[in-house]
Amino acid sequence: MTAVYLDNNATTRVDPRVVAAMLPMLTEHYGNPSSAHESGTLAKRAVAAAREQVRALIGAAHVDEIVFTSGGTESDNLAILGALAARPGRDEIVISAVEHPAVRTLCASLARTRGLVIHEIPVDAAGRIDRAAYQAALSERTALVSIMWANNETGTVFPVADMAAEANAAGALFHTDAVQAVGRVPMVLAERMIDLLSLSGHKLHAPKGIGALYVRRGIKLAAQTIGGSQERGRRAGTENVPGIVALGTACALAAASDDTTIAFLRDRLEGGLLARVADSWVLGDVEHRVPNTACIAFAGVESEAIVRLLDRRGIAVSSGSACAAGSVEPSHVVRAMGVPERFARGVVRFSLSHETTAAEIDRVIETVPDVIAELRADQLESAA
Amino acid sequence: MTAVYLDNNATTRVDPRVVAAMLPMLTEHYGNPSSAHESGTLAKRAVAAAREQVRALIGAAHVDEIVFTSGGTESDNLAILGALAARPGRDEIVISAVEHPAVRTLCASLARTRGLVIHEIPVDAAGRIDRAAYQAALSERTALVSIMWANNETGTVFPVADMAAEANAAGALFHTDAVQAVGRVPMVLAERMIDLLSLSGHKLHAPKGIGALYVRRGIKLAAQTIGGSQERGRRAGTENVPGIVALGTACALAAASDDTTIAFLRDRLEGGLLARVADSWVLGDVEHRVPNTACIAFAGVESEAIVRLLDRRGIAVSSGSACAAGSVEPSHVVRAMGVPERFARGVVRFSLSHETTAAEIDRVIETVPDVIAELRADQLESAA
Ligand SMILES: Cc1ncc(COP(=O)(O)O)c(C=O)c1O
Ligand SMILES: Cc1ncc(COP(=O)(O)O)c(C=O)c1O
Repeated sequence: MTAVYLDNNATTRVDPRVVAAMLPMLTEHYGNPSSAHESGTLAKRAVAAAREQVRALIGAAHVDEIVFTSGGTESDNLAILGALAARPGRDEIVISAVEHPAVRTLCASLARTRGLVIHEIPVDAAGRIDRAAYQAALSERTALVSIMWANNETGTVFPVADMAAEANAAGALFHTDAVQAVGRVPMVLAERMIDLLSLSGHKLHAPKGIGALYVRRGIKLAAQTIGGSQERGRRAGTENVPGIVALGTACALAAASDDTTIAFLRDRLEGGLLARVADSWVLGDVEHRVPNTACIAFAGVESEAIVRLLDRRGIAVSSGSACAAGSVEPSHVVRAMGVPERFARGVVRFSLSHETTAAEIDRVIETVPDVIAELRADQLESAA
Repeated sequence: MTAVYLDNNATTRVDPRVVAAMLPMLTEHYGNPSSAHESGTLAKRAVAAAREQVRALIGAAHVDEIVFTSGGTESDNLAILGALAARPGRDEIVISAVEHPAVRTLCASLARTRGLVIHEIPVDAAGRIDRAAYQAALSERTALVSIMWANNETGTVFPVADMAAEANAAGALFHTDAVQAVGRVPMVLAERMIDLLSLSGHKLHAPKGIGALYVRRGIKLAAQTIGGSQERGRRAGTENVPGIVALGTACALAAASDDTTIAFLRDRLEGGLLARVADSWVLGDVEHRVPNTACIAFAGVESEAIVRLLDRRGIAVSSGSACAAGSVEPSHVVRAMGVPERFARGVVRFSLSHETTAAEIDRVIETVPDVIAELRADQLESAA
């Protein structure tokens, strides 16, 4: 049984208040928002109320700037493909070297299938983006920039507001994957030059399968799912009313919540582990981070083994690695920061939520050093 | 308050047993199936079990033929766009004149943006498809056929198994939009030449926002949402675990349910109304229909007015019309059947579910004639 869940960047527990809000939409007000009768009208109104709650959390100027989607990946795809299709003539995209696969793999596929040029802006050892390289990459050929607001592995926050202004000056659209930022970083989009922003419900205590794309008024976007005229023709398909209501509720809860406790607990965890485990190192930009993420590299151990042993002791965390075809390789994010090899294979991500308690953090601070010591002893033994 | 809900072709109430199955996935087993710890493993197993339940309902040969999507519209889009992309060289698509916008509007857009040729096969006055025209349209230029299994407005069932065999003989892929058929018509896909089949959760007592696409083994399909490697690379994005579990449960319930009561009540409704309302007419192929749908045209009245008056009396039904920019026009389905003008504007769809009771049907049989009489009297008055 998982007793301590520190994998909130992978997904979060749905807040019981969110469940309570969505439940009536399943069995009672289950109408289709397109239906002309009362049951449909109630569903339509619930969607409108949720749209306002999402708008408020991200500080968008207008409710019609919010398009509901099935999640972060669809939002990223809709932003990039939808903006490209509505903006022919320019054929370059600028991204960072640490984007999520929903941006990175999509762009790689666009390079392959449509010959688009993708500029991948590097990051330094602390995960900071190379601003000079970014500025140099922008030109009158840039159709679109897609730079994440916060990185899912390290929590590093990029200066997207300034970078959006620079993209704007170059006549390029600016999209940000804010899946890890929304609800964790305050934002007022009405005051920014960000044109498109992706968010995902299951990263902020709403269910999986619901997300949204912010599309600034005036930005043309070609629908990528075509059918009925839902979402003002920008995303066809019967609205996921329970999911939308859940997302709205989660946004309202996030807007009302205070992250200082999360940051305090994260810092306590980080300080505790660095003090107790030799040869450990925090990855990412510690000056500019979301409050809930600690990404720590432990030299000389395999992160998969740490994840497995912690799981047996009831602690859920994640490794900074990707399994492809059986082999476990450091992730592209770890690689992009140029983390030295003996650290790169031992990266563990601890990601907290407002549900995390001090007692849980103390348990993790006690358990992790044991696990690392055990693994390091095994290594010495098998080397001997 | 809606007391009698007869709009189950628009959307259905989520079955309380389905809610019970999905609830634990929201607040307890909320892990990400991609996560390596126990919480992730539990989610992954739940998805696998649901995939088997979907497979069983449609009689597919293999679980890996099921791809989870966000709903019927996405399934239709993925089938058509994904099959086209994986099959260059052929540039014609064959559809019926009565497809849902998720197929029809998408194909119209493909004709416009990519110059594809779309053959629209007509139907007769009883809603039956013109088999000779279909056979004539198939050629070595046909990339794909997309013909719905059951029509959402009339319930008419097309002979998709035979039509799939004909498409196959012409070397074309065969897709069927079975959103209105799955759970209402028995099917064993393993024995058919159907290559792709769309279904949607909210039409069979699972929630909105979940669906699936059946992709026969060996059929190449290009992913339309790109990112992580979920769904074996055919549909990226964190899996909607609660929705998937709900869909699986709904499929298991549908497989175990018996539709004879639904058909009996539908026939009682139809018989009762035709006997009590002069100048009324059943639309669609009464010999080949899903058991839950009655589509009736009442001469000389506007269907919107009927829907509105019934709604006030607590009865939810739908009109066979589409509102576009303020004007109310008979739907493309009603138009395709060539329904005479004085009937075409008075089409009402009654769609039942296994929750519908005999008492509800009797109430509708009593109420509708009153409403029609009232509206016809109003008309006579305003004409006088
Ligand atoms: C930064 C980032 N972008 C996009 C996604 C994809 O979102 P979803 O899982 O809702 O498809 C994720 C999470 O998986 C993420 O962390
Ligand atoms: C025949 C048919 N196809 C496709 C759809 C679209 O499915 P969804 O509402 O899940 O997007 C519907 C229902 O709206 C339908 O009736």
